Amino acid sequence: MLGLMMQRKLLISEIIDHAARYHSDTEIVSVNTTGGEHRTNYREVRERALRMASALAGRGLEKSERIGTLAWNNYRHLELYYAISGQGLVCHTLNPRLFPEQLVYIINHAEDRVLFFDQTFLPLVAAIRDKLNTVASFVLMEPQSEEIASEHPWVEFYEDLIEQGNSGHAWPDDIDELDASSLCYTSGTTGNPKGVLYSHRSTLIHAMMSATPDVMNFSARDCLLPVVPMFHVNAWGTPYAAPLVGAKLAMPGPGLDGPSLVRLFNQEKVTISAGVPTIWAGLLAELEKTGEKLPYLQRTVVGGSACPPSMIAKFRDLYDVEVLHAWGMTELSPLGSVNNLKNKHLEADEATLKRLRENQGRPPFGIELGVFDDDDNRLPEDGETSGNLYARGIWVMSEYFRNEGGEVLHNGWFPTGDVATIDAEGYMTIRDRSKDIIKSGGEWISTVDLENLAVSHPDVAEAAVIAAHHSKWDERPLLIVVPREGVEIDEKKLLAFYEDKVAKWWIPDAVKIVDSIPKGATGKILKTSLREKYAGLLMDN
Amino acid sequence: MLGLMMQRKLLISEIIDHAARYHSDTEIVSVNTTGGEHRTNYREVRERALRMASALAGRGLEKSERIGTLAWNNYRHLELYYAISGQGLVCHTLNPRLFPEQLVYIINHAEDRVLFFDQTFLPLVAAIRDKLNTVASFVLMEPQSEEIASEHPWVEFYEDLIEQGNSGHAWPDDIDELDASSLCYTSGTTGNPKGVLYSHRSTLIHAMMSATPDVMNFSARDCLLPVVPMFHVNAWGTPYAAPLVGAKLAMPGPGLDGPSLVRLFNQEKVTISAGVPTIWAGLLAELEKTGEKLPYLQRTVVGGSACPPSMIAKFRDLYDVEVLHAWGMTELSPLGSVNNLKNKHLEADEATLKRLRENQGRPPFGIELGVFDDDDNRLPEDGETSGNLYARGIWVMSEYFRNEGGEVLHNGWFPTGDVATIDAEGYMTIRDRSKDIIKSGGEWISTVDLENLAVSHPDVAEAAVIAAHHSKWDERPLLIVVPREGVEIDEKKLLAFYEDKVAKWWIPDAVKIVDSIPKGATGKILKTSLREKYAGLLMDN
Repeated sequence: MLGLMMQRKLLISEIIDHAARYHSDTEIVSVNTTGGEHRTNYREVRERALRMASALAGRGLEKSERIGTLAWNNYRHLELYYAISGQGLVCHTLNPRLFPEQLVYIINHAEDRVLFFDQTFLPLVAAIRDKLNTVASFVLMEPQSEEIASEHPWVEFYEDLIEQGNSGHAWPDDIDELDASSLCYTSGTTGNPKGVLYSHRSTLIHAMMSATPDVMNFSARDCLLPVVPMFHVNAWGTPYAAPLVGAKLAMPGPGLDGPSLVRLFNQEKVTISAGVPTIWAGLLAELEKTGEKLPYLQRTVVGGSACPPSMIAKFRDLYDVEVLHAWGMTELSPLGSVNNLKNKHLEADEATLKRLRENQGRPPFGIELGVFDDDDNRLPEDGETSGNLYARGIWVMSEYFRNEGGEVLHNGWFPTGDVATIDAEGYMTIRDRSKDIIKSGGEWISTVDLENLAVSHPDVAEAAVIAAHHSKWDERPLLIVVPREGVEIDEKKLLAFYEDKVAKWWIPDAVKIVDSIPKGATGKILKTSLREKYAGLLMDN
Repeated sequence: MLGLMMQRKLLISEIIDHAARYHSDTEIVSVNTTGGEHRTNYREVRERALRMASALAGRGLEKSERIGTLAWNNYRHLELYYAISGQGLVCHTLNPRLFPEQLVYIINHAEDRVLFFDQTFLPLVAAIRDKLNTVASFVLMEPQSEEIASEHPWVEFYEDLIEQGNSGHAWPDDIDELDASSLCYTSGTTGNPKGVLYSHRSTLIHAMMSATPDVMNFSARDCLLPVVPMFHVNAWGTPYAAPLVGAKLAMPGPGLDGPSLVRLFNQEKVTISAGVPTIWAGLLAELEKTGEKLPYLQRTVVGGSACPPSMIAKFRDLYDVEVLHAWGMTELSPLGSVNNLKNKHLEADEATLKRLRENQGRPPFGIELGVFDDDDNRLPEDGETSGNLYARGIWVMSEYFRNEGGEVLHNGWFPTGDVATIDAEGYMTIRDRSKDIIKSGGEWISTVDLENLAVSHPDVAEAAVIAAHHSKWDERPLLIVVPREGVEIDEKKLLAFYEDKVAKWWIPDAVKIVDSIPKGATGKILKTSLREKYAGLLMDN
């Protein structure tokens, strides 16, 4: 027997419809790619998204065709999120930091029909467009410019499409909540990038749960500044969650450097933000330099890679900003877990609280995590036993786009590629990436733990630990560090710093001092390239 | 093209599974019907719910059959919520405050197969059981008692069923998220009670959204005390939302009087509560008498009927408790709107804030509200134009159980029976029930506004305003008041109190002083009975 409730579909267009009605004049402030700022609101975003949807419909695009975007966090990109998915098309966000060949591969693989791009990326698009087999329209996300039109006659202009659009357009009603809504490729370190195809339903439930207090805690009183790019797992779903609750948005555009961010945080009285540790390191460095404070910022979600405990402490102690330590990945939309306390912790002592705050947290309703051995046997969740971290849930991928890589799930679980422990309370700690963990004489050593300790040393600016080949132990840890400006590092003293902090046999065998550590498009350390360079270092000794 | 995400159903059993894994030892403290307290946790609740589900399955009950409960807010009632719905049966909560004949009607209409009841209601069940045509088992929610068994041989005992249940039982997997999960009858003031049949899906999405900061704002750090009974629209969904986020629960059992509540609030360090104004009036009176404070309580949701502004102010000013002013109804699961500020209000002055806090708020994502005239034409949402309030959304009913009352919706909207205004921001103010509003010379006068003013007068304990017949104006307001203990009310002075506060023609024509005002089972004033008694009063003059 069915319940007797109204049949309503969970569609992305419902989010912007809600925001336009109940938060019509709530601001979206946006740093323009070409300089200056733009102010709009949810009513206008919806109106223009509908016009854009109508313009796209006018081009004969069929349901579920892919539309690419190469853009910063700005209001036009936000409009496209709703125009494209609202029209039943698939919003395919592209990471402009990838190599051009990777972009060509991804766009052709996805068969994008239209490519929207910010002015920053005009040279990039001009260089690769001949190789894009399926793209029929290239749309620059700016008003008409005669100069650009004469130099690049293949370019169309965003504002022309808005004008062509019909203001009386309505969202099509043949969209199901299980239909594809958006597409994001993971920049795998091996093999070709693979696409994750989200549905309207997974996106909406992820947005609802992400707004709850124990996840990102968004309300209509917040001003949210997503530092995490909209081309990186849909900015962790924030462009859906913010209008869902009616939060004000401050979009940083291309200005992700410390000074630009500090200015926008304080000018717009941003209350909550979200981004990867690399960006926060830049922000903290800027604050340290100028002595500025963050009087309005209350919370920031840090994820993408493990957040060093020293960063959590700095935010809390120096700037009174609560760090929500989160873990996720593209295949999880991305939210897998967030660190938050429980009622019984309310009266815990400072030391216990500090320890509790350092792990990656527990999954919200909708996600389940487990640790497994290499034969898919479930391991104990005792806070001690490291295992392969698997996830399943409402917003977890079931297979990659076009079934790339074939059957990915193990008995219905998605193997994340991380190694973790989970304790009896459900709190999870990432110990390493499965491909990074060091297997020394059959025992596992976490490179993450060793890196966190290294960056907490006052002389160290950046650190990475890799598995170096070893004739006796197979692998041993090698510490690679970038010293702080003007500091000379004493290798012996640095290694002595590990004593009493980790087991003796965890202490790296050697230190390699470098000028910089290579990072990928999303700010993550490229360990593959470090291994290529330095993995033989201990064999030469 | 479908998204490539895992197919997961939104089922009520998923909530308790999540809580049992990730909040296994989070406490549920429960005041027993027979005295004393009981402490359990989410792991135990799930284990016992599964045993009870297995015991029910063993009785040959078929999917979607109804199981009645007549019980206070306690842990066994919580177990039943999950055992019944988790097993694919329908949890039918019964309001013990109804007249016995109404209960007989409802149980027979729902065709309940099993009736669970608290010891308080043993005499009631004994008196009506012969008239219950479909109930095969009567289960007292206590352990075995020889005394009761010998006096009432037809009684079974809850703990016996738990023992009969199989500890290895698993939730059946043939349940769809659109299947019926629970049933609640509305105590209509006219006609027979009608049932609202919720689905797993509507219940889960309601629970997720109710946890968000702008709705009820539940986290794992909260201790929630639902004062609103579990037989009243599923305690506003709190027994689902609390385990969904892992909040501690304090269940007051039968102790809804001021002293019992104050004790439980402070003993269990309750952070958030929810209930109707009548209960809060009792609580505030107790605090006033004893001088006690509420040092842990941060927020309370007040709904069920309009909350007088004077009550909001008392909670805020005297006890530092934030009142979340909510509006809803059984047909809306029940959440329709909650009063919360927006980002742009953060710097508003005190007077503006006070005004903003007094209305019923705006709907969360998932609900849409509109005002309509008697011909279903949509009226302007300008904060001025009163109209019939209609609602639609994910957790709004589409028709009553067994299609009682036939087609209820108007063009897809549910007519709430309230008269309201909605402003450009989406904030809604209930002006009256459509059947209570006073139509004086063709113009509408809100009895709610007049009542709120009356109870803010220091001499008035309770007040009701009704439409009295009038030879010239058809209807005119009559103010009915219960004076505060020991106070003599001067009618003229009381009416003069309205001057400058409302339009002259809104001021009631007369005051009727009474000892008490009749209330229905859920604490709402029974205006029908007041009208029967006093509606002719102005005609006699």
